[in-house]
Amino acid sequence: MDAQPSFLNQLFDKGFLVPSGVDGLYGRGEAYEEVIAGFDSLITKTVANDAAEKISFPPGMSRVAFEKSGYMKSFPQLAGTVHSFCGVDHDHTELLAQLAAGEEWTGKQEVTDVVLTPAACYPIYPVLAARGNMPKGGVVFDLQSYCFRHEPSQDPARMQLFRIREFVRAGTPEEVVAFREEWLKRGPAMMEAVGLPLHIDLANDPFFGRGGRLMKVGQREQQLKFELLVQIANPAGPTAIMSFNYHQDHFGETWGIHTNDGGVAQTACTGFGMDRIALALLKHHGLDLKAWPKSVSKTLWG
Amino acid sequence: MDAQPSFLNQLFDKGFLVPSGVDGLYGRGEAYEEVIAGFDSLITKTVANDAAEKISFPPGMSRVAFEKSGYMKSFPQLAGTVHSFCGVDHDHTELLAQLAAGEEWTGKQEVTDVVLTPAACYPIYPVLAARGNMPKGGVVFDLQSYCFRHEPSQDPARMQLFRIREFVRAGTPEEVVAFREEWLKRGPAMMEAVGLPLHIDLANDPFFGRGGRLMKVGQREQQLKFELLVQIANPAGPTAIMSFNYHQDHFGETWGIHTNDGGVAQTACTGFGMDRIALALLKHHGLDLKAWPKSVSKTLWG
Repeated sequence: MDAQPSFLNQLFDKGFLVPSGVDGLYGRGEAYEEVIAGFDSLITKTVANDAAEKISFPPGMSRVAFEKSGYMKSFPQLAGTVHSFCGVDHDHTELLAQLAAGEEWTGKQEVTDVVLTPAACYPIYPVLAARGNMPKGGVVFDLQSYCFRHEPSQDPARMQLFRIREFVRAGTPEEVVAFREEWLKRGPAMMEAVGLPLHIDLANDPFFGRGGRLMKVGQREQQLKFELLVQIANPAGPTAIMSFNYHQDHFGETWGIHTNDGGVAQTACTGFGMDRIALALLKHHGLDLKAWPKSVSKTLWG
Repeated sequence: MDAQPSFLNQLFDKGFLVPSGVDGLYGRGEAYEEVIAGFDSLITKTVANDAAEKISFPPGMSRVAFEKSGYMKSFPQLAGTVHSFCGVDHDHTELLAQLAAGEEWTGKQEVTDVVLTPAACYPIYPVLAARGNMPKGGVVFDLQSYCFRHEPSQDPARMQLFRIREFVRAGTPEEVVAFREEWLKRGPAMMEAVGLPLHIDLANDPFFGRGGRLMKVGQREQQLKFELLVQIANPAGPTAIMSFNYHQDHFGETWGIHTNDGGVAQTACTGFGMDRIALALLKHHGLDLKAWPKSVSKTLWG
């Protein structure tokens, strides 16, 4: 139908992404990583005076913490549990025979204590709760993580493993709402500085199943989630490259996170979809980084 | 027994690592990441003239490629397969009831197309094979990945999720052996430049089970693996922070990787255990980065 190679194939051809044979799972070439690093440094400059505590998480988190988070209630279809072989010699012999015969061989894999991290903020809540009442004024975290969501897709902007840099604010309702308001101004300003045409929209998370429908409606009615959207590679419409989420006291209650005076803390977070931002920049400014508008190059690479 | 806090607890106290409740699974604080970034830039300087193709991999790889690699034959106990919930509403209801009752809830998780990457070189072999015969002189890759090995431990230098930067050479036996020889000189020089007392030793991989014993002996007899070892936090002895591996034609045969004249390529790789290197530096130079020897600071941060 379309003689033009797809955007994903163009990214493969030019070495920005490297195919793995699995939809949504790609190696990243050097130029792609330069785009990521450029935008990452723009974020770092933007938050230079925020006094945020910076933590980089590995791509997996504690299964016990994951279970407590409630993720399986809302998004069971997206989670990835990690399983390992815990057998002995004769189990191994059987496993190798199954593998050799092209049969299912993972029956003896047992669930481990590790679950792939679904969003960069999930591992921080139990850490924060364990520290006791927060200092006056609350706290802000600057987090990053590779994250996993099980949604194989040929849209390059819907990867199974992708990076999020995420800011999490915990404090009083006023502090938390002010944080989100601030980011709802900063986000568009940053995207305009790198030449991305955007709009902000009310949004909902992909809550699972029949019960999920009500949660989507409730989230929208209370205006808990906004997204910053840019047209990338989905012909059906633009893709979210940032989100702005107000959790009210959901995580504060779940984890027992308390403000200085002992009340249940509220939380909010703002996430940058780093891979989606890189893809949006490549889509809008083209695959020759040297030909990008000077103002964009300067913003990204100084 | 020991009134001194363990090295791991000291790292927690000073914020270099952040506990998750799971052994071998830690967040990384800002100063820890500065050490990682400093050593990473030393590597980049060292290889500036190597003309290596740089690829950054996500922490998971194709299950089909993983199966073909032979990893489950050698190290089944270390691998992590990724499983997801593929059920419908009533399965979800059952799952939530199991979770609420504190029962095993992962019975309906099905294996996905993703396996956690066990070493940064595993995803590159099928990519290289798919490109057809290599150019004359072969190729060299500069790879990085978060990797997973299922070996929970309270030794901070034995993490379940950790970063490897790895160089992979493919070519003729002469090219590949010369690459390993070069790194066996470069590695110690780099570690001396950052003040780490080291030794190089013949080594073997942790091949599984009774059959694995013979493989360990064979690997040692043929001198296929060397490690660069530094004392970190294991009272039983030093820990490998680099490895130098000669695969002969193992991966070339497995994947069908060919030299320019159509012969089966040989491969070798050199891996930097980035987290172990950071821990070795913190152990040897102390937890106050500003008090590190000037020559070390200058080498890492210029």
